[in-house]
Amino acid sequence: MNSEATAASCPLCVQSGGEVLWDDGFARVVLVGDADHPGFCRVILNAHKKEMTDIAEIERNRLMNVVYVVERLLRELLQAEKINLASFGNMVPHLHWHVIPRYAGDPHFPGSVWSERLRAGARPLPAGFARTLRTRLADALLR
Amino acid sequence: MNSEATAASCPLCVQSGGEVLWDDGFARVVLVGDADHPGFCRVILNAHKKEMTDIAEIERNRLMNVVYVVERLLRELLQAEKINLASFGNMVPHLHWHVIPRYAGDPHFPGSVWSERLRAGARPLPAGFARTLRTRLADALLR
Repeated sequence: MNSEATAASCPLCVQSGGEVLWDDGFARVVLVGDADHPGFCRVILNAHKKEMTDIAEIERNRLMNVVYVVERLLRELLQAEKINLASFGNMVPHLHWHVIPRYAGDPHFPGSVWSERLRAGARPLPAGFARTLRTRLADALLR
Repeated sequence: MNSEATAASCPLCVQSGGEVLWDDGFARVVLVGDADHPGFCRVILNAHKKEMTDIAEIERNRLMNVVYVVERLLRELLQAEKINLASFGNMVPHLHWHVIPRYAGDPHFPGSVWSERLRAGARPLPAGFARTLRTRLADALLR
Protein backbone atom coordinates (compact mmCIF):
# COMPACT_ATOMS: atom_id res chain seq x y z
CA MET A 1 0.00 0.00 0.00
CA ASN A 2 0.99 3.60 -0.49
CA SER A 3 2.31 4.72 2.89
CA GLU A 4 1.78 8.36 1.96
CA ALA A 5 -1.94 7.91 1.87
CA THR A 6 -2.93 5.58 4.66
CA ALA A 7 -4.92 6.42 7.77
CA ALA A 8 -4.05 4.73 11.04
CA SER A 9 -7.69 4.46 12.08
CA CYS A 10 -9.09 3.27 8.73
CA PRO A 11 -10.01 -0.43 8.65
CA LEU A 12 -9.25 -0.64 4.91
CA CYS A 13 -5.80 0.85 5.52
CA VAL A 14 -4.90 -1.45 8.40
CA GLN A 15 -6.65 -4.66 7.30
CA SER A 16 -7.10 -6.43 4.01
CA GLY A 17 -10.91 -6.44 4.25
CA GLY A 18 -11.33 -10.05 3.17
CA GLU A 19 -9.49 -12.86 1.42
CA VAL A 20 -7.14 -11.12 -0.99
CA LEU A 21 -7.44 -12.63 -4.48
CA TRP A 22 -5.40 -10.04 -6.37
CA ASP A 23 -3.31 -6.96 -5.54
CA ASP A 24 -1.11 -4.92 -7.85
CA GLY A 25 -0.10 -2.29 -5.29
CA PHE A 26 -2.66 0.18 -6.63
CA ALA A 27 -5.80 -1.78 -5.78
CA ARG A 28 -6.85 -5.17 -4.49
CA VAL A 29 -9.73 -7.60 -4.95
CA VAL A 30 -11.04 -9.39 -1.89
CA LEU A 31 -13.66 -12.06 -1.35
CA VAL A 32 -15.79 -10.64 1.45
CA GLY A 33 -17.08 -13.91 2.92
CA ASP A 34 -20.73 -12.78 3.12
CA ALA A 35 -22.89 -15.74 4.18
CA ASP A 36 -25.94 -14.51 2.25
CA HIS A 37 -23.94 -13.58 -0.85
CA PRO A 38 -20.91 -15.88 -1.00
CA GLY A 39 -19.59 -14.46 -4.29
CA PHE A 40 -19.58 -10.87 -2.93
CA CYS A 41 -16.24 -9.26 -3.83
CA ARG A 42 -14.81 -5.84 -3.14
CA VAL A 43 -12.36 -3.86 -5.23
CA ILE A 44 -10.46 -1.65 -2.82
CA LEU A 45 -8.16 1.23 -3.74
CA ASN A 46 -5.04 0.78 -1.64
CA ALA A 47 -4.54 4.50 -1.02
CA HIS A 48 -6.82 6.24 1.47
CA LYS A 49 -9.00 8.38 -0.81
CA LYS A 50 -12.64 9.20 -0.22
CA GLU A 51 -14.39 9.93 -3.51
CA MET A 52 -13.91 8.94 -7.16
CA THR A 53 -13.47 12.64 -7.92
CA ASP A 54 -10.60 12.80 -5.41
CA ILE A 55 -8.41 10.68 -7.68
CA ALA A 56 -7.13 11.38 -11.19
CA GLU A 57 -9.03 10.29 -14.30
CA ILE A 58 -6.37 7.69 -15.12
CA GLU A 59 -6.71 6.26 -11.61
CA ARG A 60 -10.52 6.19 -11.85
CA ASN A 61 -10.29 4.29 -15.12
CA ARG A 62 -7.71 1.90 -13.72
CA LEU A 63 -9.85 1.19 -10.65
CA MET A 64 -13.03 0.74 -12.68
CA ASN A 65 -11.25 -1.59 -15.09
CA VAL A 66 -10.66 -3.91 -12.14
CA VAL A 67 -14.35 -3.61 -11.20
CA TYR A 68 -15.37 -4.56 -14.75
CA VAL A 69 -13.00 -7.53 -14.81
CA VAL A 70 -14.48 -8.79 -11.53
CA GLU A 71 -17.98 -8.25 -12.92
CA ARG A 72 -17.14 -10.19 -16.06
CA LEU A 73 -15.59 -13.08 -14.13
CA LEU A 74 -18.48 -13.29 -11.65
CA ARG A 75 -20.89 -13.42 -14.57
CA GLU A 76 -18.89 -16.14 -16.24
CA LEU A 77 -18.03 -18.25 -13.19
CA LEU A 78 -21.30 -17.91 -11.29
CA GLN A 79 -23.90 -17.29 -14.00
CA ALA A 80 -25.33 -14.49 -11.89
CA GLU A 81 -28.72 -13.07 -12.86
CA LYS A 82 -27.43 -9.53 -12.24
CA ILE A 83 -24.31 -7.84 -10.98
CA ASN A 84 -24.68 -5.03 -8.43
CA LEU A 85 -22.01 -2.32 -8.21
CA ALA A 86 -21.82 0.23 -5.43
CA SER A 87 -19.40 2.65 -3.79
CA PHE A 88 -20.77 4.27 -0.63
CA GLY A 89 -18.09 4.90 1.98
CA ASN A 90 -20.48 6.40 4.53
CA MET A 91 -18.97 4.32 7.32
CA VAL A 92 -15.49 3.74 5.88
CA PRO A 93 -14.59 6.74 3.69
CA HIS A 94 -11.91 4.86 1.76
CA LEU A 95 -12.76 4.06 -1.87
CA HIS A 96 -14.05 0.51 -2.23
CA TRP A 97 -16.42 -0.99 -4.76
CA HIS A 98 -18.92 -3.67 -3.87
CA VAL A 99 -19.30 -6.16 -6.73
CA ILE A 100 -22.14 -8.52 -5.90
CA PRO A 101 -23.55 -11.42 -7.92
CA ARG A 102 -27.33 -11.55 -7.54
CA TYR A 103 -29.86 -14.32 -8.17
CA ALA A 104 -33.64 -14.30 -8.34
CA GLY A 105 -33.85 -16.47 -5.20
CA ASP A 106 -31.15 -14.83 -3.08
CA PRO A 107 -31.90 -13.48 0.42
CA HIS A 108 -32.49 -9.87 -0.71
CA PHE A 109 -33.56 -10.09 -4.37
CA PRO A 110 -34.85 -7.91 -5.97
CA GLY A 111 -33.87 -5.44 -3.26
CA SER A 112 -30.34 -4.31 -2.66
CA VAL A 113 -28.23 -6.40 -0.28
CA TRP A 114 -28.62 -3.49 2.16
CA SER A 115 -32.40 -3.74 1.99
CA GLU A 116 -34.61 -5.91 4.17
CA ARG A 117 -33.65 -9.58 4.17
CA LEU A 118 -36.54 -11.44 2.59
CA ARG A 119 -35.60 -15.10 2.86
CA ALA A 120 -32.84 -17.65 3.40
CA GLY A 121 -31.32 -19.28 0.37
CA ALA A 122 -27.71 -18.31 -0.29
CA ARG A 123 -26.39 -20.05 -3.38
CA PRO A 124 -23.19 -21.93 -2.49
CA LEU A 125 -20.07 -21.20 -4.48
CA PRO A 126 -18.76 -23.82 -6.88
CA ALA A 127 -15.88 -25.92 -5.53
CA GLY A 128 -12.55 -24.14 -5.78
CA PHE A 129 -14.17 -20.79 -6.58
CA ALA A 130 -11.69 -18.57 -4.71
CA ARG A 131 -8.72 -20.31 -6.30
CA THR A 132 -10.26 -20.16 -9.76
CA LEU A 133 -11.12 -16.47 -9.40
CA ARG A 134 -7.61 -15.73 -8.16
CA THR A 135 -6.10 -17.40 -11.21
CA ARG A 136 -8.51 -15.74 -13.63
CA LEU A 137 -7.88 -12.29 -12.10
CA ALA A 138 -4.15 -12.75 -12.46
CA ASP A 139 -4.62 -13.68 -16.13
CA ALA A 140 -7.05 -10.88 -16.92
CA LEU A 141 -5.17 -8.15 -15.08
CA LEU A 142 -1.65 -9.08 -16.08
CA ARG A 143 0.44 -5.97 -16.75
CA MET B 1 -32.92 7.40 -27.52
CA ASN B 2 -31.54 4.62 -29.65
CA SER B 3 -34.58 2.92 -31.11
CA GLU B 4 -32.58 -0.22 -31.87
CA ALA B 5 -32.08 -0.94 -28.21
CA THR B 6 -35.26 -0.04 -26.39
CA ALA B 7 -37.67 -2.39 -24.67
CA ALA B 8 -41.38 -1.65 -24.83
CA SER B 9 -41.92 -2.82 -21.25
CA CYS B 10 -38.91 -1.09 -19.68
CA PRO B 11 -39.78 1.99 -17.60
CA LEU B 12 -36.43 3.62 -18.42
CA CYS B 13 -37.05 3.09 -22.13
CA VAL B 14 -40.58 4.49 -22.12
CA GLN B 15 -40.24 7.21 -19.46
CA SER B 16 -37.58 9.75 -18.60
CA GLY B 17 -37.26 8.54 -14.99
CA GLY B 18 -37.24 12.02 -13.48
CA GLU B 19 -36.69 15.66 -14.35
CA VAL B 20 -34.23 15.57 -17.26
CA LEU B 21 -31.36 17.97 -16.63
CA TRP B 22 -29.09 16.87 -19.46
CA ASP B 23 -29.26 14.44 -22.40
CA ASP B 24 -26.78 14.01 -25.24
CA GLY B 25 -28.56 11.11 -26.94
CA PHE B 26 -26.22 8.57 -25.36
CA ALA B 27 -27.15 9.14 -21.73
CA ARG B 28 -29.22 11.45 -19.60
CA VAL B 29 -29.10 12.93 -16.12
CA VAL B 30 -32.32 13.17 -14.17
CA LEU B 31 -33.25 14.60 -10.80
CA VAL B 32 -35.17 11.79 -9.14
CA GLY B 33 -37.33 13.86 -6.79
CA ASP B 34 -36.67 11.71 -3.71
CA ALA B 35 -38.24 13.40 -0.67
CA ASP B 36 -35.61 12.03 1.75
CA HIS B 37 -32.69 12.78 -0.57
CA PRO B 38 -33.68 15.79 -2.68
CA GLY B 39 -30.35 15.98 -4.54
CA PHE B 40 -30.57 12.31 -5.65
CA CYS B 41 -29.72 12.14 -9.37
CA ARG B 42 -29.57 9.26 -11.81
CA VAL B 43 -27.34 8.88 -14.85
CA ILE B 44 -29.25 6.67 -17.27
CA LEU B 45 -27.86 5.06 -20.41
CA ASN B 46 -30.42 5.71 -23.11
CA ALA B 47 -29.97 2.31 -24.78
CA HIS B 48 -31.49 -0.74 -23.11
CA LYS B 49 -28.41 -2.55 -21.82
CA LYS B 50 -28.20 -4.56 -18.63
CA GLU B 51 -24.63 -4.65 -17.35
CA MET B 52 -21.54 -2.44 -17.62
CA THR B 53 -19.79 -5.39 -19.27
CA ASP B 54 -22.53 -5.49 -21.94
CA ILE B 55 -21.30 -2.21 -23.42
CA ALA B 56 -17.97 -1.32 -25.00
CA GLU B 57 -15.09 0.11 -22.97
CA ILE B 58 -15.46 3.49 -24.67
CA GLU B 59 -19.14 3.54 -23.73
CA ARG B 60 -18.40 2.56 -20.13
CA ASN B 61 -15.89 5.39 -19.86
CA ARG B 62 -18.30 7.84 -21.46
CA LEU B 63 -21.09 6.85 -19.09
CA MET B 64 -18.85 6.98 -16.01
CA ASN B 65 -17.53 10.38 -17.04
CA VAL B 66 -21.08 11.67 -16.72
CA VAL B 67 -21.36 10.02 -13.30
CA TYR B 68 -18.13 11.71 -12.16
CA VAL B 69 -19.29 15.12 -13.43
CA VAL B 70 -22.55 14.73 -11.51
CA GLU B 71 -20.59 13.67 -8.42
CA ARG B 72 -18.31 16.69 -8.70
CA LEU B 73 -21.20 19.11 -9.17
CA LEU B 74 -23.19 17.65 -6.27
CA ARG B 75 -20.14 18.00 -4.05
CA GLU B 76 -19.64 21.59 -5.14
CA LEU B 77 -23.26 22.74 -5.14
CA LEU B 78 -24.51 20.85 -2.09
CA GLN B 79 -21.38 20.41 0.07
CA ALA B 80 -22.36 16.78 0.58
CA GLU B 81 -20.53 14.82 3.28
CA LYS B 82 -20.25 11.83 0.94
CA ILE B 83 -21.39 10.81 -2.52
CA ASN B 84 -22.91 7.35 -2.95
CA LEU B 85 -22.70 5.64 -6.35
CA ALA B 86 -24.61 2.49 -7.25
CA SER B 87 -25.78 0.50 -10.25
CA PHE B 88 -28.11 -2.39 -9.35
CA GLY B 89 -30.78 -3.01 -11.98
CA ASN B 90 -32.39 -5.90 -10.12
CA MET B 91 -35.84 -4.46 -10.74
CA VAL B 92 -35.15 -2.48 -13.90
CA PRO B 93 -32.33 -4.19 -15.81
CA HIS B 94 -31.45 -1.08 -17.83
CA LEU B 95 -28.14 0.56 -16.91
CA HIS B 96 -28.66 3.49 -14.56
CA TRP B 97 -26.36 4.96 -11.93
CA HIS B 98 -27.65 6.34 -8.67
CA VAL B 99 -25.62 9.40 -7.60
CA ILE B 100 -26.70 10.42 -4.12
CA PRO B 101 -25.45 13.25 -1.94
CA ARG B 102 -25.30 12.13 1.69
CA TYR B 103 -25.16 14.08 4.96
CA ALA B 104 -24.47 13.00 8.53
CA GLY B 105 -28.06 13.87 9.56
CA ASP B 106 -29.94 12.51 6.55
CA PRO B 107 -32.74 9.95 6.96
CA HIS B 108 -30.53 6.89 6.32
CA PHE B 109 -26.99 7.95 7.25
CA PRO B 110 -24.65 6.15 7.70
CA GLY B 111 -26.63 3.32 6.08
CA SER B 112 -27.35 3.17 2.39
CA VAL B 113 -30.51 4.89 1.17
CA TRP B 114 -31.91 1.37 0.69
CA SER B 115 -31.28 0.52 4.34
CA GLU B 116 -33.67 1.11 7.22
CA ARG B 117 -34.90 4.69 7.49
CA LEU B 118 -33.55 6.04 10.76
CA ARG B 119 -35.01 9.52 11.06
CA ALA B 120 -36.65 12.44 9.29
CA GLY B 121 -34.48 15.35 8.28
CA ALA B 122 -34.08 15.74 4.54
CA ARG B 123 -31.87 18.70 3.74
CA PRO B 124 -33.74 21.05 1.36
CA LEU B 125 -32.09 21.95 -1.91
CA PRO B 126 -30.78 25.47 -2.38
CA ALA B 127 -33.08 27.76 -4.36
CA GLY B 128 -32.79 27.24 -8.11
CA PHE B 129 -30.81 24.02 -7.69
CA ALA B 130 -32.27 22.15 -10.69
CA ARG B 131 -31.71 25.09 -13.00
CA THR B 132 -28.18 25.62 -11.72
CA LEU B 133 -27.31 21.94 -12.09
CA ARG B 134 -28.77 21.90 -15.61
CA THR B 135 -26.58 24.85 -16.61
CA ARG B 136 -23.47 23.43 -14.98
CA LEU B 137 -23.98 20.01 -16.62
CA ALA B 138 -24.30 21.65 -20.02
CA ASP B 139 -21.04 23.55 -19.40
CA ALA B 140 -19.13 20.56 -18.04
CA LEU B 141 -20.31 18.07 -20.65
CA LEU B 142 -20.16 20.28 -23.72
CA ARG B 143 -18.89 18.36 -26.72
